[in-house]
Amino acid sequence: MGYIYCVGIGPGATSHLTKEAIDALIASSVIVGYKTYVDLISPIIGERQVIATGMMKEVERAKIAVELAQDGKVVAVVSSGDSGIYGMAGLVIEVINELGIELGQDKIGLRVIPGIPAFVAAASLLGAPLVHDFCAISLSDLLTPWKVIEKRLRSAGEGDFVVALYNPRSKKRDWQLQSALAILGEYRDEKTPVGLVKRAMRQGETVEICHLSNVPIEEVDMESILIVGNSNTFEVGPFMVTPRGYFDKYEIL
Amino acid sequence: MGYIYCVGIGPGATSHLTKEAIDALIASSVIVGYKTYVDLISPIIGERQVIATGMMKEVERAKIAVELAQDGKVVAVVSSGDSGIYGMAGLVIEVINELGIELGQDKIGLRVIPGIPAFVAAASLLGAPLVHDFCAISLSDLLTPWKVIEKRLRSAGEGDFVVALYNPRSKKRDWQLQSALAILGEYRDEKTPVGLVKRAMRQGETVEICHLSNVPIEEVDMESILIVGNSNTFEVGPFMVTPRGYFDKYEIL
Ligand SMILES: C[S@@+](CC[C@H](N)C(=O)[O-])C[C@H]1O[C@@H](n2cnc3c(N)ncnc32)[C@H](O)[C@@H]1O
Ligand SMILES: C[S@@+](CC[C@H](N)C(=O)[O-])C[C@H]1O[C@@H](n2cnc3c(N)ncnc32)[C@H](O)[C@@H]1O
Repeated sequence: MGYIYCVGIGPGATSHLTKEAIDALIASSVIVGYKTYVDLISPIIGERQVIATGMMKEVERAKIAVELAQDGKVVAVVSSGDSGIYGMAGLVIEVINELGIELGQDKIGLRVIPGIPAFVAAASLLGAPLVHDFCAISLSDLLTPWKVIEKRLRSAGEGDFVVALYNPRSKKRDWQLQSALAILGEYRDEKTPVGLVKRAMRQGETVEICHLSNVPIEEVDMESILIVGNSNTFEVGPFMVTPRGYFDKYEIL
Repeated sequence: MGYIYCVGIGPGATSHLTKEAIDALIASSVIVGYKTYVDLISPIIGERQVIATGMMKEVERAKIAVELAQDGKVVAVVSSGDSGIYGMAGLVIEVINELGIELGQDKIGLRVIPGIPAFVAAASLLGAPLVHDFCAISLSDLLTPWKVIEKRLRSAGEGDFVVALYNPRSKKRDWQLQSALAILGEYRDEKTPVGLVKRAMRQGETVEICHLSNVPIEEVDMESILIVGNSNTFEVGPFMVTPRGYFDKYEIL
């Protein structure tokens, strides 16, 4: 029986993989993934067969993995962060579904092995911005119409959620971030702390706390993530923190 | 100089800790935490001094950790899952702030070491429910008025976010979950898939997929988490999956 592990390798360096993720990589005979991520874990995968494709070839990778598993292979499909958060796990299950393969039956087995998501890694570098209710929104309008994204930003603003902004800005998508911050600015003070983390736990990592009104938009790229505080988030030294309650915070001391 | 590591130990078994988390535990001379979580990692902490307090003593634990660090000790404060998601990291930084200690200066150093959050672990067991925008909402109204929670549920409904429900139900808080599901039901079809995971990656783990209209509320306890799909989430064999895009899903194959 073939088997697919959808493995989240965490934000970057190998010291953020869990033991379960390492075990799944070791148990696999083929590793499928985007080249940059496969390179990050090369010390673990050693001499195993690697099928590395470029960015934007996610569907192709998912199909290759399913075909290999149909041939009886044990395959690891790697994603950065967690495989289920804007990652490959969904696509692999969708391909299986389209092909009419019955999961959990004798043909192919599948397990998703969780990893530290980028927004959790970024939050840890920023202190504790996520201690109260939060949401994650991708600003990529390649597969989601901007109208849906805009609606979510407004809902996040109205609900006073801490907001993690994924896929914030690329060379081709250069106006979405500014627009997103302007929408959140309709609901939040311009002094609301915003954390900008680039290359969390990778070479070239940067961590910066600014305000909703002065985010250095030009610096933001596709290896960046932003965490916008809620109405209660405040700065403490080098950190930003969202208190866990909405009652007077002195009550808890 | 004293140092505090706020360490997320992941959802349960030690195979979900990252190497960085293990290293931080090993580098510490005192481990502070809720007894159940400290017991889960006893093979790692060995003979180190342990200060384990009961549930609901979070503020006390945070203060003890800060005092120990002021005495020059290296302390690990452990949380289940991630320390920054409804965890101890925020409280520790809040206590430091209240006491007027300057972080990053010579008195106390602090680092948050990320862990796999419960909702990410639960999602991996359910397949891939989080592949599109999501939010996390705690149903505990001990520190947050129900009005704020209700508003968030409505915002999550309007924004069509996948919703992870934390702290869903306890003996004392027995009506909130039903109320929350009813609110989401105003925005979503009653057939929307809902994943219920109990004790993810712990002894006694259970995983179940039901619908918004037939969640077995009586089974839900404080070691449970629910993931409510968005309008696009569907079931594939034993899994639930949220497609990554809002365009016709056949386009991507
Ligand atoms: C396709 S998504 C992958 C998300 C990943 N599966 C996760 O669990 O976080 C790619 C986006 O994630 C964010 N990202 C991933 N790794 C990152 C890192 N190390 N530092 C900052 N942002 C990162 C960026 O916003 C990037 O555009
Ligand atoms: C105080 S919060 C801690 C959250 C944790 N810091 C995290 O990152 O997920 C406790 C709640 O998390 C959820 N939870 C924690 N561990 C869990 C597990 N192993 N399985 C299911 N739910 C869990 C339950 O909803 C529980 O009531």
